[in-house]
Amino acid sequence: MAGSTFGKIFRMTTWGETHGRGVGVVVDGCPAGLALCEEDIQKYLDRRKPGQSRYTTKRNEEDKVEILSGIFEGKTTGTPISLAVFNKDQRSRDYSAIKDIYRPGHADFTYDAKYGFRDYRGGGRSSGRETTARVAAGAIAARVLHEMGIEVFAYTRSIGPVTIDENYFSREERDRNALYMPDKEAASKAADYLEEKMKELDSCGGLVECVITGMPAGIGEPVFDKLSACLGKAILSIGAVKGFEIGDGFQASQAVGSENNDNFYNDNGKIGKKTNHAGGILGGMSDGSEIRFRAAFKPTPSIAKMQHTVTTAGEDTEISIHGRHDPIIVPRAVVVVESMAAVVLLDLLLQNMGSRLDAVKKFYDR
Amino acid sequence: MAGSTFGKIFRMTTWGETHGRGVGVVVDGCPAGLALCEEDIQKYLDRRKPGQSRYTTKRNEEDKVEILSGIFEGKTTGTPISLAVFNKDQRSRDYSAIKDIYRPGHADFTYDAKYGFRDYRGGGRSSGRETTARVAAGAIAARVLHEMGIEVFAYTRSIGPVTIDENYFSREERDRNALYMPDKEAASKAADYLEEKMKELDSCGGLVECVITGMPAGIGEPVFDKLSACLGKAILSIGAVKGFEIGDGFQASQAVGSENNDNFYNDNGKIGKKTNHAGGILGGMSDGSEIRFRAAFKPTPSIAKMQHTVTTAGEDTEISIHGRHDPIIVPRAVVVVESMAAVVLLDLLLQNMGSRLDAVKKFYDR
Amino acid sequence: MAGSTFGKIFRMTTWGETHGRGVGVVVDGCPAGLALCEEDIQKYLDRRKPGQSRYTTKRNEEDKVEILSGIFEGKTTGTPISLAVFNKDQRSRDYSAIKDIYRPGHADFTYDAKYGFRDYRGGGRSSGRETTARVAAGAIAARVLHEMGIEVFAYTRSIGPVTIDENYFSREERDRNALYMPDKEAASKAADYLEEKMKELDSCGGLVECVITGMPAGIGEPVFDKLSACLGKAILSIGAVKGFEIGDGFQASQAVGSENNDNFYNDNGKIGKKTNHAGGILGGMSDGSEIRFRAAFKPTPSIAKMQHTVTTAGEDTEISIHGRHDPIIVPRAVVVVESMAAVVLLDLLLQNMGSRLDAVKKFYDR
Amino acid sequence: MAGSTFGKIFRMTTWGETHGRGVGVVVDGCPAGLALCEEDIQKYLDRRKPGQSRYTTKRNEEDKVEILSGIFEGKTTGTPISLAVFNKDQRSRDYSAIKDIYRPGHADFTYDAKYGFRDYRGGGRSSGRETTARVAAGAIAARVLHEMGIEVFAYTRSIGPVTIDENYFSREERDRNALYMPDKEAASKAADYLEEKMKELDSCGGLVECVITGMPAGIGEPVFDKLSACLGKAILSIGAVKGFEIGDGFQASQAVGSENNDNFYNDNGKIGKKTNHAGGILGGMSDGSEIRFRAAFKPTPSIAKMQHTVTTAGEDTEISIHGRHDPIIVPRAVVVVESMAAVVLLDLLLQNMGSRLDAVKKFYDR
Repeated sequence: MAGSTFGKIFRMTTWGETHGRGVGVVVDGCPAGLALCEEDIQKYLDRRKPGQSRYTTKRNEEDKVEILSGIFEGKTTGTPISLAVFNKDQRSRDYSAIKDIYRPGHADFTYDAKYGFRDYRGGGRSSGRETTARVAAGAIAARVLHEMGIEVFAYTRSIGPVTIDENYFSREERDRNALYMPDKEAASKAADYLEEKMKELDSCGGLVECVITGMPAGIGEPVFDKLSACLGKAILSIGAVKGFEIGDGFQASQAVGSENNDNFYNDNGKIGKKTNHAGGILGGMSDGSEIRFRAAFKPTPSIAKMQHTVTTAGEDTEISIHGRHDPIIVPRAVVVVESMAAVVLLDLLLQNMGSRLDAVKKFYDR
Repeated sequence: MAGSTFGKIFRMTTWGETHGRGVGVVVDGCPAGLALCEEDIQKYLDRRKPGQSRYTTKRNEEDKVEILSGIFEGKTTGTPISLAVFNKDQRSRDYSAIKDIYRPGHADFTYDAKYGFRDYRGGGRSSGRETTARVAAGAIAARVLHEMGIEVFAYTRSIGPVTIDENYFSREERDRNALYMPDKEAASKAADYLEEKMKELDSCGGLVECVITGMPAGIGEPVFDKLSACLGKAILSIGAVKGFEIGDGFQASQAVGSENNDNFYNDNGKIGKKTNHAGGILGGMSDGSEIRFRAAFKPTPSIAKMQHTVTTAGEDTEISIHGRHDPIIVPRAVVVVESMAAVVLLDLLLQNMGSRLDAVKKFYDR
Repeated sequence: MAGSTFGKIFRMTTWGETHGRGVGVVVDGCPAGLALCEEDIQKYLDRRKPGQSRYTTKRNEEDKVEILSGIFEGKTTGTPISLAVFNKDQRSRDYSAIKDIYRPGHADFTYDAKYGFRDYRGGGRSSGRETTARVAAGAIAARVLHEMGIEVFAYTRSIGPVTIDENYFSREERDRNALYMPDKEAASKAADYLEEKMKELDSCGGLVECVITGMPAGIGEPVFDKLSACLGKAILSIGAVKGFEIGDGFQASQAVGSENNDNFYNDNGKIGKKTNHAGGILGGMSDGSEIRFRAAFKPTPSIAKMQHTVTTAGEDTEISIHGRHDPIIVPRAVVVVESMAAVVLLDLLLQNMGSRLDAVKKFYDR
Repeated sequence: MAGSTFGKIFRMTTWGETHGRGVGVVVDGCPAGLALCEEDIQKYLDRRKPGQSRYTTKRNEEDKVEILSGIFEGKTTGTPISLAVFNKDQRSRDYSAIKDIYRPGHADFTYDAKYGFRDYRGGGRSSGRETTARVAAGAIAARVLHEMGIEVFAYTRSIGPVTIDENYFSREERDRNALYMPDKEAASKAADYLEEKMKELDSCGGLVECVITGMPAGIGEPVFDKLSACLGKAILSIGAVKGFEIGDGFQASQAVGSENNDNFYNDNGKIGKKTNHAGGILGGMSDGSEIRFRAAFKPTPSIAKMQHTVTTAGEDTEISIHGRHDPIIVPRAVVVVESMAAVVLLDLLLQNMGSRLDAVKKFYDR
């Protein structure tokens, strides 16, 4: 029943709902000596903030993070780092109408089944707001990874039927448009597509892709805590995610071995791979090449279009969900995907340190 | 570094490699009072045995399971259940040629990177043989689930480009053909396709689909131990799995909300859903309807076709892997997928028992 | 490196230091439906507050707890409960003198060894202040236990050489004197003893004893998570604790079997024990009788008396620690001991629910 | 309900009962590259074997350990190491009489309460035999520690009222007498005392003391996984242990601060402590000096002397337990205490590696 803690060595415990005092996270196991301040974390949270585009809701949340512990003279002390973002704009009247209704596609029904009742205001703990805490923790993990030359870069790969074209891929473009697509043309087309959906009082899904560079080889703990499995769990725990794949992913199920295998070769004295169908993970561990994975997001369940559903008493009824809801989750989720990946990578990097006796002896000067 | 334990309450710890004394698992946390004998487990292992078809290798492993502890007078005592399958047919000479080579698509390279050396005989711990232990544990979980009216049914959904046709779906057909496809026609076409690949000295990938019935609603521990996330981790930890999706999965990324939402309705006094795009999981918890997920397997990496690679010293070389290798992993993996799912379900069912105070008080007669 | 989380199902994660923004805890896995408000927790924290007696420091901390999440309409929702107590009275100038000194008996030296540097203000995370968070979590656990008819009662058993006399034991007396001794006479003698020590600019140790009533039999998870072992870990993790014993404890090492065994007998149709040398725990599980254990606290390390020590550079020096320090830790620790015990009991009660198949089936109506 | 796994990084999972196929353990997370063979482990198990003295039972168990996995070419591969000791001498008829009786001081009653029934033959999982598995795992941990210059040395400190005299302490003497007392004189007196008890058809308790040398400072994970707390849990999980103390332990509860504090001083350029009342642990972490702790064992519950008890139906009855039972547990437990300590130390040494960012970067050459 304790499902709000993630990680083994670098570990985060999140708390908070849409309409409580706020959301937050306790990060335990962060190595001591990392320079860290609110701004390092705030810039990650800002990428989650709505109101940055016409397509994300205008809730005007001022997600301002506060560091409550674990830092001294600007550096992490190795003790738990408590971060909190206090709720400001709640307007609970938005949600009173749904108190006695099970919204389709939402967790209302399952939370009631599990706990016997639920905080019906805005989705409570099942709301996307909960991801703010994950992003705060991920920002810290990302800082540590950065110190080690490891970068995690995620972006919107597709919105509905509109997919980026790899030939026009540009990292800089990602942060220049509101949809976080690294392809200006695709972003424009996706924008049109979204306008259509909004007119139809509907929503749509999309894909987030993530690329990780700089990882050493051998990271991951077979057989159950493989890097692929840990990343999968992390990403699938994000609300609205219905699929996860690494490298060629589902395409690999239709490939043949001679094409899917990444052949090793002598790359100027280093061992390289001619291709990367594996997505950088082999035998469940990083192989030193670029790690690539994708997450499939279903459409936002809250739509203004009329839907059939039931009341909590089980009677047929209809519902049209008004208020402030995104027609698409994906752009806000990009930084959440990056954050979850960063936490997994750091946790496994720390777990890996005890793999070899010679390295353990060297570490302790014995 | 302890990556061989899976689960929190119902927990399994596996051990063993291709060329050690055998493989096995310790199952801890199995409720006491379950009638259990070797045969209950053996029938699951038999579904993994090669030699049952022309397409799986003729290694003739006699995977005979032995129960070493945890049973008394035919019932589980609640103490750890140790299961072992001792290796019989090892023929190490099959593998001596690969001692100094990194086989493409295999974990040789990454195990060396992590540990500094590896047991090169047949893949050691990274071999598919390790899954025997998982299946043994899954067999126990499946028995408990069965006692509770919960069934887990997996099958081969596709091999290469050949996919089953839902109109001809037949559960009985699955166990009647060697490819475990619940569609006789598709099984025949897939057989032809495999013959082709074998002639080409190649291999291919496929999809396994799994359907779970009888689950109560509310199972899963948000936000990180959601049922979807736990299933994902379990399945992605199986060797060769490169993708995982629930319900409509990746298709949902191209859907619109009004179509993807499963509308609730009054189903003769019970709350039902008109559709099941969610695949039975909502807000990360079971919603009481059928749970459906798919796993994408890459092609078997060991092929007889010549491949470019490097020696462990990093020099270019070529390799053709002869011996006893399946041209496809999927049929053998079907029972592994069922087993991993069973373990996850039971673990979360047990974790859920403490969710509500009234239920806890009732349990303890307080 | 993640040492700030405790528990498996009912789980707490604490954070905070003496001179950060505050201290707090995230409680995960608390069953839903428990009526809970700040006052329920505040009354536990108040028992920790200094200034309630001449013998505890006059730091005048106003430990006012705030519930930040996990409650809706006055009841726990089953989601994480975040509690925080924000620091008010910090007066860091008290500690500037010790920045470059390793205080004897304190964790300064070991924190530096582990992390390379430390928050030297007032002990940072090693300060007794950290226990505030534990008490807040323990208060919640105690509420649930109370709902189940289980009570945890701890008290000061001895201060220095002054021990309570069981013949004059009175529960009510505990809360009537500042030393929390359930024996008025002993409390008076101990008071005199403490006056002596204070005049000598010294401190002293003591014992806390804890009695638990109402536990059902069979709670504890052999072989490693035995109730005795879990309680021991919980109590030994409290700062200044150097010993833990159950039932007759160390005395049992000098007993003979015929006297130490608790003989069962027919107690009016129920199975009872004639004695309770075991302290209510048998084979590592509760046996249904009263559970009794003791914790040994060393003297407060911070004394005004001059002590020899070294600077952080390793040079000989002397130190006299002035400021606001208790001459004895024990009275403040009584509620901490109760709280840790409560958390352990609840966690194991929840873990035990999956022990028997028949009970699991009954729970799920299957 | 999964109480048979211990540790976070270096992790052991034990299985087995007195009258099953055998006992065993799976050790996960052992660093790769350690030279290891059966003999390394056997010599630890041999110290547990009965029949080595007049005072331990003549059951003539041939505890011969077998390594089933995790070793290749004489070295650990980093994969799980499965060890098993198969039962040979069981003579179940010894136990048939106790099938329907709750033996005083044994776990019969509590196992029945927890699981609804139990394996009554010889104590099943609650038997001392279960510790064989722990010792096997401890032997591996001890080998790693030895490679790092860390030694764990335990011995019998007292048997009943007979305690060793530190003035005559001799490490070599420990292995020369059957009681493992490092004081020849005391061993002789204790022998006489035991003869007495055996004539009286009784048993007695004792103390085991353990000394650890060579530990670096800073090992332990505050605040809950402190070294003291982890050691305490490990030792208290051993059957018959009713007390645990570190350094001066319970004596410290009667000391004053000026005497109990260990003063630091400049020891020829190194930081040393003038005394070691703390027992080598400060703030829950090792301080670099010798670690010392003691465990109190209650008397063997199985005695030939007639005792009052009840049947499983709750009726008054009497029992005299014949057969092969030690009059004292302590000598056999010495190696168990060493083993549990070794496992804890290694686990925390591995966990500590991620404490500092500079060390993590150095480890990864970043």
